Amino acid sequence: MSFQVSEELDQLLTNIKLFLVQEVYPKEKEVIEKGFNSALPILEELRNMVKKKGWWAPAMPKEYGGMGLSFLEFARISEILGTTPIGHYIFNSQAPDIGNMELMLEFGTKDQKEKYLRRLVNGEIRSCFSMVEPDRPGSNPTWIETTAQRDRDNYIINGHKWFTSSADGATFNIVMAVTNPNGEKHKKASMLIVDMDNPGFEFIKNIPVMGEEGEGWMSHAEVKYNDCQIPITNLLGAEGEGFALAQHRLGPGRIHHCMRWIGICERAFDLMCKRAVSRRITPEANLASQQTVMNWIAECRADINAARLMVLDTANKIDTHGQYKARDDISIIKFFVANILLKVLDRAIQVHGALGVTDYTPLSYWYRHERPSRIYDGPDEVHKRAVSRRILSKYNDN
Amino acid sequence: MSFQVSEELDQLLTNIKLFLVQEVYPKEKEVIEKGFNSALPILEELRNMVKKKGWWAPAMPKEYGGMGLSFLEFARISEILGTTPIGHYIFNSQAPDIGNMELMLEFGTKDQKEKYLRRLVNGEIRSCFSMVEPDRPGSNPTWIETTAQRDRDNYIINGHKWFTSSADGATFNIVMAVTNPNGEKHKKASMLIVDMDNPGFEFIKNIPVMGEEGEGWMSHAEVKYNDCQIPITNLLGAEGEGFALAQHRLGPGRIHHCMRWIGICERAFDLMCKRAVSRRITPEANLASQQTVMNWIAECRADINAARLMVLDTANKIDTHGQYKARDDISIIKFFVANILLKVLDRAIQVHGALGVTDYTPLSYWYRHERPSRIYDGPDEVHKRAVSRRILSKYNDN
Amino acid sequence: MSFQVSEELDQLLTNIKLFLVQEVYPKEKEVIEKGFNSALPILEELRNMVKKKGWWAPAMPKEYGGMGLSFLEFARISEILGTTPIGHYIFNSQAPDIGNMELMLEFGTKDQKEKYLRRLVNGEIRSCFSMVEPDRPGSNPTWIETTAQRDRDNYIINGHKWFTSSADGATFNIVMAVTNPNGEKHKKASMLIVDMDNPGFEFIKNIPVMGEEGEGWMSHAEVKYNDCQIPITNLLGAEGEGFALAQHRLGPGRIHHCMRWIGICERAFDLMCKRAVSRRITPEANLASQQTVMNWIAECRADINAARLMVLDTANKIDTHGQYKARDDISIIKFFVANILLKVLDRAIQVHGALGVTDYTPLSYWYRHERPSRIYDGPDEVHKRAVSRRILSKYNDN
Amino acid sequence: MSFQVSEELDQLLTNIKLFLVQEVYPKEKEVIEKGFNSALPILEELRNMVKKKGWWAPAMPKEYGGMGLSFLEFARISEILGTTPIGHYIFNSQAPDIGNMELMLEFGTKDQKEKYLRRLVNGEIRSCFSMVEPDRPGSNPTWIETTAQRDRDNYIINGHKWFTSSADGATFNIVMAVTNPNGEKHKKASMLIVDMDNPGFEFIKNIPVMGEEGEGWMSHAEVKYNDCQIPITNLLGAEGEGFALAQHRLGPGRIHHCMRWIGICERAFDLMCKRAVSRRITPEANLASQQTVMNWIAECRADINAARLMVLDTANKIDTHGQYKARDDISIIKFFVANILLKVLDRAIQVHGALGVTDYTPLSYWYRHERPSRIYDGPDEVHKRAVSRRILSKYNDN
Repeated sequence: MSFQVSEELDQLLTNIKLFLVQEVYPKEKEVIEKGFNSALPILEELRNMVKKKGWWAPAMPKEYGGMGLSFLEFARISEILGTTPIGHYIFNSQAPDIGNMELMLEFGTKDQKEKYLRRLVNGEIRSCFSMVEPDRPGSNPTWIETTAQRDRDNYIINGHKWFTSSADGATFNIVMAVTNPNGEKHKKASMLIVDMDNPGFEFIKNIPVMGEEGEGWMSHAEVKYNDCQIPITNLLGAEGEGFALAQHRLGPGRIHHCMRWIGICERAFDLMCKRAVSRRITPEANLASQQTVMNWIAECRADINAARLMVLDTANKIDTHGQYKARDDISIIKFFVANILLKVLDRAIQVHGALGVTDYTPLSYWYRHERPSRIYDGPDEVHKRAVSRRILSKYNDN
Repeated sequence: MSFQVSEELDQLLTNIKLFLVQEVYPKEKEVIEKGFNSALPILEELRNMVKKKGWWAPAMPKEYGGMGLSFLEFARISEILGTTPIGHYIFNSQAPDIGNMELMLEFGTKDQKEKYLRRLVNGEIRSCFSMVEPDRPGSNPTWIETTAQRDRDNYIINGHKWFTSSADGATFNIVMAVTNPNGEKHKKASMLIVDMDNPGFEFIKNIPVMGEEGEGWMSHAEVKYNDCQIPITNLLGAEGEGFALAQHRLGPGRIHHCMRWIGICERAFDLMCKRAVSRRITPEANLASQQTVMNWIAECRADINAARLMVLDTANKIDTHGQYKARDDISIIKFFVANILLKVLDRAIQVHGALGVTDYTPLSYWYRHERPSRIYDGPDEVHKRAVSRRILSKYNDN
Repeated sequence: MSFQVSEELDQLLTNIKLFLVQEVYPKEKEVIEKGFNSALPILEELRNMVKKKGWWAPAMPKEYGGMGLSFLEFARISEILGTTPIGHYIFNSQAPDIGNMELMLEFGTKDQKEKYLRRLVNGEIRSCFSMVEPDRPGSNPTWIETTAQRDRDNYIINGHKWFTSSADGATFNIVMAVTNPNGEKHKKASMLIVDMDNPGFEFIKNIPVMGEEGEGWMSHAEVKYNDCQIPITNLLGAEGEGFALAQHRLGPGRIHHCMRWIGICERAFDLMCKRAVSRRITPEANLASQQTVMNWIAECRADINAARLMVLDTANKIDTHGQYKARDDISIIKFFVANILLKVLDRAIQVHGALGVTDYTPLSYWYRHERPSRIYDGPDEVHKRAVSRRILSKYNDN
Repeated sequence: MSFQVSEELDQLLTNIKLFLVQEVYPKEKEVIEKGFNSALPILEELRNMVKKKGWWAPAMPKEYGGMGLSFLEFARISEILGTTPIGHYIFNSQAPDIGNMELMLEFGTKDQKEKYLRRLVNGEIRSCFSMVEPDRPGSNPTWIETTAQRDRDNYIINGHKWFTSSADGATFNIVMAVTNPNGEKHKKASMLIVDMDNPGFEFIKNIPVMGEEGEGWMSHAEVKYNDCQIPITNLLGAEGEGFALAQHRLGPGRIHHCMRWIGICERAFDLMCKRAVSRRITPEANLASQQTVMNWIAECRADINAARLMVLDTANKIDTHGQYKARDDISIIKFFVANILLKVLDRAIQVHGALGVTDYTPLSYWYRHERPSRIYDGPDEVHKRAVSRRILSKYNDN
């Protein structure tokens, strides 16, 4: 394999995989069934095991209590964690917290780091990210309605957001709001930290998504900001830099997501193969004897391999040349891998037959909760348009 | 349109559609949220409205309290009812009850009709159909494990079933069991009526499907038959005719399902178009301005039209030449329409963006609960194989 | 089948099919290999056989020497003729002549009919249709460059056209040219009859298409009009009505094309099935034992059935309500059937293996010469846009 | 890019690409139109230019007059050469000659190398490879009919082959024939060198493929071996090793083909983009403004990138671990890249509209002559089956 991993990392990946198979897979069904809050004791126990093994927060610097792995190393780990719906949480590497950690690490003030980041990395608190609005397309982050008006040493935030994921039970929130309404398109918005107990912050409810309202980390909230006053020291990064920070957050975020999706693909692939060899369709023959199933297995193998190479190549480009030069690749993997993910899940379900639609495998969970992968962080259509425009602009220049 | 409907039927369809839009659509979300049992008062009220309008049980004979519509007439109504998840229930035409009604109407003894059918058509009781087994592929109905051993005037049933849909709260059950283990492949099994309060019948639980255990009519049970004794008078049809009856049940059943799916498609299509014209993606442009969305609308329109023509043509063939001669067409529409259904739903969700994965439209309900359409009543692969074998056998004969 | 054909037509279809199988299929390879001009004696002999059988020009009125069949009857015959690349020619129902016949029959003056139509229907001469221009998109027929300037009793035509199919050897041409440059968009152009021996008409060359320049009827010419003077009596229809006439020509034309494509599909399907049962892949097994091949056969059967129902339904609508009301259906079948055609051909080739890419079956001919089906008469994309816009306009009006 | 190329190779690739654009692209249409034999002077001139530049036979060792590039280096060059239909020929790296060169280089005797290989690498002669038989599936190379019977110091070959590509004008042939009919399945056949002027060798004809018989290097012959006597010194490799050698030939051969296909994809992609920005569809808008075209460009970019990464990764594995360990990857890229190739070509044609089906771009040539890519060297279906079986066998072992 050309995107070589060091022997050390290889060993780590093997160990983590083994831990997941032995300790985590057996508990994922119970966690999903109970719901996040009731399952917290189980999750805490698993988190403690991870901490003891020295694998906590692999992407965070050692000084904050993480493993201090590089971007490319964490990408590999993210794939392994993705093989179970609770993998990232158990390693304290779950969205949206990990994105917030990365943002604060790079752009947070010393105080912000002490107050928020340290406890976040420790796993003491959770956070959320409040960008999408019900009345504005998530695909157009330059067009938002929420405002944060400067009032001496404070900002007064007003607005309505939804899909503020994991808000339920979170301690703070990073909100995107227009601070410079007359600024140019990409310079209007800023990111602001809002404590959830701020009286101007209103938690409306967890939105029912795919049949579940969910709870705790596993939920998507609708929230409101009603003359919500925060000190200007809660500005994250510079004023007007909200869009830039959001982009900055999304680049590595998409690598994390994509690697997680590949992890899901591998688990689904494994389940599909196991089912194929174990399920008899007549007393003499099993599903693996069916050429249609064989085709799916070969095609899924091809697709997953392609997905991984694409993501690693993109991660490598980000690492070498920076996000800006890799922006086409980042857009491409977003739609390319999300579509492979859903195709692999669909086929794994079909191979499982009736069992595939039950909650006795994680497939039905992913079928529901990964359908949004083609929508969030920019729907397929928006990424295709973006990639194509940049390609064609080079032709137009000639 | 070449599959002409009479002016009278056309008027009826229009009236029913209007009723659904005005009275039922506004309540579907509440019903799904509350769950079947809690929503019963709402459902009962709607059922009473339907009765008052004289639209009750449209496919059942007038002597049993139905409308006495023909097979082809009901197919049209089934499409309209399919536009809401609770349409068929409100008209007492829901699976699995309607299939059981059809079976009993044709094959039931006078006593069976009096004891079960009449109350079923009246809507006093519910029923279920117990065929699929967890350890045997649903795709091979000639290979089942459950047995019904003759013991003088009784049968003693033993076996393990799942996806006995709507068992929760049902009054009786039609179970498929092997009565003639030494009979030829298609003559081994029989259908037997089992009262749910039979001490040998064990309701294990509702299987969690796509994140929900469901309840009442909206559930899929795992059940067991433990030396379950029933009188031989509870045999439905002749001994050894279980497979034949199942096929008989499935033919019209597939028409009902397919027309229901087309109804879902039409609703999803309508929601997609409404969303396209109402959702702005910039202050100046709405989604309908996007060629990708236009492509989907045109392609969905084409696919839905094709689906309807295929199903009506098949229904017509069943009506004219009988199920046997139409068996290829029945297999074809099963996989053809189910795939169109899922494609249309997927696109409608994508056009809705984040809203599409919430439970604020019926799309997410159908996305979850119609995924099985490609699995139950024979997965795509089995139907394709069956159709192809018959076609190729003609070539082999030459 | 719900789109019933009369017993008489059914018999005719059977007879024609038998004739094609026995007399025409065996000669199609030779005709294609030799090229149109060298193959003329063979074609003439076959045409004479058709005349003797009384099947000549089935869509033309009896007074002109045709069979006088209705639009819907001819649609059925068109399917049968489509099963061989030379079927339509042998029955004098080939594009572009049949389109020209239909136009002249409805809009030609008495003189035009005598001079051109009668000889065309007799099969004495051939014609062509000159609309598409190399520098203007064929998908936008309201934007053409060729002009026809009125000069007393004449028009002076200037312009450059290509894909003037079958111009090589034709006697006359119907050209689309702008006569009213200041007219509104759809009223600028007119149709004009140009004799090919007009000194202002320049035949440049047959365009090499898919590796062949072709010749005679089987060719696509590039032509020029250099101050080409024609009498005003050669105006076909009214001045400024060119676009309307073109639309008028296209409606039934698309039915003819679609039914022809379905004929191709049926032949390809038949070849695929024959190959599947006859080709051994090991000493013991043939291709028909492969589930992938089975899937293709079932899916192609489904697609072809759907295609036929869609086209017949559309033809029926045109017949009942006129072209205008059926224009969405006409657009839909154009892209729906063309895509099925190419998919069926592709799969039939794959089943044939190496044989499939040789010229020993008609598949390779169709693979090459029907690829344009997704382009001519409006590419898929244009039809999808048109259908979608009309659908969405109804939503916008609300 | 993670599959780094050296600066030196990078410069070479740039120079070759420039040469192709300036000197070769302008002549490709003429070569294809004239046919191979008439175009030989043009091709010879271009070959001489390549020799002068020191780029001759890049994959061959310097001692034979080649550039002595490594397998991975040549893979990169193969992509560039693939951008024109005559690229590989001009660099004397065309199939089937390059495969024969590789075989002889590794398995040829000293005499065979002197007599055949040296002249082949020099470009003095051409060769062919005779494996596929009309009556046996090419997908099953262990089941062939042609025999080579030992008769003292000779073999007597009898058999019937087709798709002996480039036989027309070749000097020698490597034929696959059964020498050990009682050997085990993979040990029956051997490879034998046959001079084309051997009286027992019969050139029947060039098979018409996709409308063309072709000639010279650009042709596919049907041939016969009639008691064709050759000395045993013409055995290539050991007796019974024919299958092993064929596999050996195919591994790198598939890399060459895949990289060539990617070259075709890149050229088609480039043509598609150029067309998109240059073709106006209204006086105001060009094709590039159409979202459908944008989607295709983004999707093609994603697919081509994925294809290249997959092939380079596989080449890397072959290089590092040998063909055997990379056999799944080799099978995967065979079907994965061939399907991308045909999809990209199809879309590029669609974007070109009518121009796309003419021979004015190389697209129509590739559309016809690369359709076999999904068939030769093992059809998609065979590779999928092979990959899947190996994957599932690991699950069965558990």
